[in-house]
Amino acid sequence: MAPLRSYVNGRWHTATEPGVPLHDAVTGEEVATVSSAGIDMAAALEHGRRVGGPALRELTFHQRAALLKALASHLREHREELYALSTRTGSTKGDSMFDIDGGIGVLFGYSSKGRRELPNSTVCVDGAVEPLSKGGTFAGQHILTPLRGVAVQINAFNFPVWGPLEKFAPAFVAGVPTLVKPASQTAYLTARLVELIIESGLLPEGSLQLVCGSAGDLLDHLTEQDLVGFTGSASTAQRLRAHPRVVSRSVRFNAEADSLNCSILGPDAKPGTAEFDLFVKQLCTEMTVKAGQKCTAIRRAFVPADLLDAVSEAASARLAKVTVGNPANPDVRMGALASLEQREEVRRSLKALLEAGRVVFGDPGDPQVVDADPSRGAFLSPILLRAEDPDLAQPHEVEAFGPVSTLMPYTSTEQVVALAARGQGSLAGSVVTGDTEFARDVVLGVAPWHGRLLVLDADSAKESTGHGSPLPALVHGGPGRAGGGEEMGGIRGVFHHMQRTAVQGSPKVLTAVTGQWVAGADRNADGVHPFRKSLAQLRIGDTVVAGPRTVTQDDIDHFAEFTGDTFYAHTDADAAKANPFFGGKVAHGYLVVSFAAGLFVSPEPGPVLANYGLENLRFLTPTYPGDELTVTLTAKQITPRENADYGEVRWDADVTNGKGESVAKYDVLTLVAKA
Amino acid sequence: MAPLRSYVNGRWHTATEPGVPLHDAVTGEEVATVSSAGIDMAAALEHGRRVGGPALRELTFHQRAALLKALASHLREHREELYALSTRTGSTKGDSMFDIDGGIGVLFGYSSKGRRELPNSTVCVDGAVEPLSKGGTFAGQHILTPLRGVAVQINAFNFPVWGPLEKFAPAFVAGVPTLVKPASQTAYLTARLVELIIESGLLPEGSLQLVCGSAGDLLDHLTEQDLVGFTGSASTAQRLRAHPRVVSRSVRFNAEADSLNCSILGPDAKPGTAEFDLFVKQLCTEMTVKAGQKCTAIRRAFVPADLLDAVSEAASARLAKVTVGNPANPDVRMGALASLEQREEVRRSLKALLEAGRVVFGDPGDPQVVDADPSRGAFLSPILLRAEDPDLAQPHEVEAFGPVSTLMPYTSTEQVVALAARGQGSLAGSVVTGDTEFARDVVLGVAPWHGRLLVLDADSAKESTGHGSPLPALVHGGPGRAGGGEEMGGIRGVFHHMQRTAVQGSPKVLTAVTGQWVAGADRNADGVHPFRKSLAQLRIGDTVVAGPRTVTQDDIDHFAEFTGDTFYAHTDADAAKANPFFGGKVAHGYLVVSFAAGLFVSPEPGPVLANYGLENLRFLTPTYPGDELTVTLTAKQITPRENADYGEVRWDADVTNGKGESVAKYDVLTLVAKA
Repeated sequence: MAPLRSYVNGRWHTATEPGVPLHDAVTGEEVATVSSAGIDMAAALEHGRRVGGPALRELTFHQRAALLKALASHLREHREELYALSTRTGSTKGDSMFDIDGGIGVLFGYSSKGRRELPNSTVCVDGAVEPLSKGGTFAGQHILTPLRGVAVQINAFNFPVWGPLEKFAPAFVAGVPTLVKPASQTAYLTARLVELIIESGLLPEGSLQLVCGSAGDLLDHLTEQDLVGFTGSASTAQRLRAHPRVVSRSVRFNAEADSLNCSILGPDAKPGTAEFDLFVKQLCTEMTVKAGQKCTAIRRAFVPADLLDAVSEAASARLAKVTVGNPANPDVRMGALASLEQREEVRRSLKALLEAGRVVFGDPGDPQVVDADPSRGAFLSPILLRAEDPDLAQPHEVEAFGPVSTLMPYTSTEQVVALAARGQGSLAGSVVTGDTEFARDVVLGVAPWHGRLLVLDADSAKESTGHGSPLPALVHGGPGRAGGGEEMGGIRGVFHHMQRTAVQGSPKVLTAVTGQWVAGADRNADGVHPFRKSLAQLRIGDTVVAGPRTVTQDDIDHFAEFTGDTFYAHTDADAAKANPFFGGKVAHGYLVVSFAAGLFVSPEPGPVLANYGLENLRFLTPTYPGDELTVTLTAKQITPRENADYGEVRWDADVTNGKGESVAKYDVLTLVAKA
Repeated sequence: MAPLRSYVNGRWHTATEPGVPLHDAVTGEEVATVSSAGIDMAAALEHGRRVGGPALRELTFHQRAALLKALASHLREHREELYALSTRTGSTKGDSMFDIDGGIGVLFGYSSKGRRELPNSTVCVDGAVEPLSKGGTFAGQHILTPLRGVAVQINAFNFPVWGPLEKFAPAFVAGVPTLVKPASQTAYLTARLVELIIESGLLPEGSLQLVCGSAGDLLDHLTEQDLVGFTGSASTAQRLRAHPRVVSRSVRFNAEADSLNCSILGPDAKPGTAEFDLFVKQLCTEMTVKAGQKCTAIRRAFVPADLLDAVSEAASARLAKVTVGNPANPDVRMGALASLEQREEVRRSLKALLEAGRVVFGDPGDPQVVDADPSRGAFLSPILLRAEDPDLAQPHEVEAFGPVSTLMPYTSTEQVVALAARGQGSLAGSVVTGDTEFARDVVLGVAPWHGRLLVLDADSAKESTGHGSPLPALVHGGPGRAGGGEEMGGIRGVFHHMQRTAVQGSPKVLTAVTGQWVAGADRNADGVHPFRKSLAQLRIGDTVVAGPRTVTQDDIDHFAEFTGDTFYAHTDADAAKANPFFGGKVAHGYLVVSFAAGLFVSPEPGPVLANYGLENLRFLTPTYPGDELTVTLTAKQITPRENADYGEVRWDADVTNGKGESVAKYDVLTLVAKA
């Protein structure tokens, strides 16, 4: 067998040594060999930095997001091929969809988030402008810029497609090139994935590299601009985290390690309730999807003591229906573990777990299998354990990374919260209950030990994505044993790849740096109403000053009558005076912004197509009858859309009275034609 | 001398051994001794977890913020005593104010930020609700909860007051107890600070502990719920970061290490310009404040090659006026280094720097001093170096942690950006220029290597806080050599002490967990208009449904005329139809929200005092003449103020048309009386 090819330095690399054989999880046949021999790791990193990074940074966030979408569509067209290869890892069709469609879904998710939540530019602001001076000549703004290094992504064997894609997508949107190193066991699937991506020609050269085989001296060449994202065992995570180069250069290191995730059944969820059934069903699903080889799978199932027998029986009955065997056979519900070595590892862990509990379902020996040779494939039946004493150490410390869970009893909310915490940090947990108060107490009690917590009940069951599914919009990662990291979480995952910098200076300087107009910076009132300017002509800072218009008592009375807003502060002088904030009758806030619009609008058809919203409106000073209003409207942010002939313009609106006090400040959101 | 007392386990502890003597930086006299002998570190941590943490978590964010303010006022009253002790560290009055008033300022800053930017509750939401289902029965919300451990804060010798306070404040607001370990050299000042704090009786017991002397086996007892915040040398940071317990429990570790910060003069800033003078003045200030013992001080000053002589001369002239000596003498501009050992360290580094440059001002030997015995105090003159070849390694790698900077020439923007990056990560940098484009290019070029960047020009000079001043609202920390950490940054620093957890479930569950109403959760329309309920009576979910009201063509015409908003989409049917978003004349968005207010308002005087703003207003569906509008207003978030008889209520407003489509969604912000 030829070794899997790597993709480094802009070309396909075949190892200069024969490599280690990789075996089909079902048949034991050799699938490929793997070795990274001959790869110049330092050169690969430098290629990412010198070629990939600059090419990515030429693109805006929206352009990168659009490429991700195109890539997702491309991969979707080639799914069948990936499914076929995935079967060789022991995966059923359902497992493969979880991995492959799940990974493609992350690309779509980041494409969508990137376009909706990031500016169409190359620099991103983080948080609000921080006023740092009384006179307003000096202020601060945090910005985020892409790190200038490479995101080194070291993935686990269990998700050879989702794993690389969920790490790649946020790095790509951030503008940081990726070097992916899959776990060898299933590297043939990741290698094919990367081939499909590179062959698509969609991505700038250098934005994705692949190292199949050992990482060699890769980490020795990291700098403070690189990052490492690791998924795998806790022991490897610890070794890499303490790598001398990682430590000496303060390299950002994000780890996601297997954890002893728990699921908690509420005391209300007696047999016969929807929640009882949901708990049992979810537990069995989590045990059997990917043959339990999921970092998020339920390892510890906490059940009210008086329900332990019932859950034990119901789960056993359900597991008895799980057919184990050749994952290509559509009747098979659970395929093989990824390798014989993995199965040995699980059996070793089982032995430790059996010191604290007993088997209530399943058999650690070779199972009955359908359509496969049990002596060649890495098959194992689901195994449900039961530990009567939840205070023993093993169930909270020993992870059998396979179709194995342990049932344990609890007797109070306080106790189950403490038991959950004994996992010392988990990726995910779930609470199955129809009792909202119990849900709240458990969630707030165990949250410090969890990256994600799912509450399952009859209300949400139909649409719930389930305990074990990380989602691109939510953080994936957990404290302590789970590695202490955070991946995804929507745009948070993009920001992990960027440096946050507090920039201080005059409003003019902050405007120049961020590309967004900052209050206090120069305004351009050149006589052309900015609503007459197309997106191509408009510049941030373009301004119209309109007014003054006097607000009369009649206006207020009329507005109250017309709109029906007869709140006493607008209609009853004495009552208004008694209000702690007003000295007498005041104009409606809605009247102020309506008059302001009447002042700043340019009525004839033109590039401004619609006002689609307002943000951050604050009424700062009451408006009394006789006050004169002036409005200053300034183009603050311009966001052309990549795939439309218009874009968004955010305007800074400042309504002032005759004394120059700001009456109202807000952002007006409009759609403006490109030409 | 008696050893400094520590404060652990709820009592003052005197070391069981005599301890190491600490010396006055000016006179060489012994000030105190220091030792942590006899402290049970594991018990101290457990005291924080069992006593301090629970007491803090009983308080809301606003209550913690209020305590910080009281504490700041208390310390301000005792400043003089701290100033006097500070003199013994070698600090002038100005230096002491930087340290002591700066630290008190951080407390005030966090108090203010905490009240303005966090809810008045014990759990905080992070980001928006993430819709995870089509039907809306399943959604996600990230929450932040305080870690259940202790924030171990290991501080540097140079800021014995500011250092502890800037780490303590965000931890306290987060609800996480602190254990502070000052650097021994100046621990007597931190010890007095902590005495003042403990004696004030303002803080819950266990929320602040003090270990003077060695940390002993402290780190061996950390768990995944503790965190370490370290400020000091890069080598110690590396050792602690790789500590087996820190690594094995994924303990959050934040390091802030000295870095080779740069200041860049723009090519426009010729002699005679304001920016030339500002650059020289700032450079000399940074060299001499705290005798240059500031992690943020300028070590590398990059100057256009043709201005190098001029800067060299101007800076030398300025430095010649700096009087070195007894910091208690008001004529003295620069005091002593913190100790004779520090001075030796600086002289060693100077030797290395002199391999790449030459001295243009100052003398590494013993300086002339005022009002002090030069043979006893750790005095050193400011030393300005000049390296003609900026490509040599030493100025970019060797830090002399004292009044020492190196001038280097550059010839292009690209070159100076590359030179700045050779610091491999800095806390702070500055650009002094009147050229906004140069400022932008340099800031965006060097941002990935910086935690903070200051642009200084004539516009902002008067109000600028300067290169070397970290501010509570801005992040302090930097990548790579600077430690890779982030402190402060406003509420970001609070969040560093909390666990982010993605909670998934039905809107009802999310509402119960967060205490904020989530769309889709139950509404309570009990017949009592929620505007009639005081803050004490109002519950989240309380709702009024009002309407329908038909919007007529007359209404639209009238509103256009009345407000002056005659935008064509409201007034010209043909033009409106030609607009890509409208099928004909549409109502003004301002009309829709004004009518909605007319529907939901309850006019008589009552607990609702004022509408102070709107947020997140989006117009989702056009309103055409004849459409019937209904508004549903639901109490979403209730924020009582700690020090007022009212609070804020945020309402969810949803305006729908006759088809049930949402026309507009927004948050209405009101002030409501407590009773």
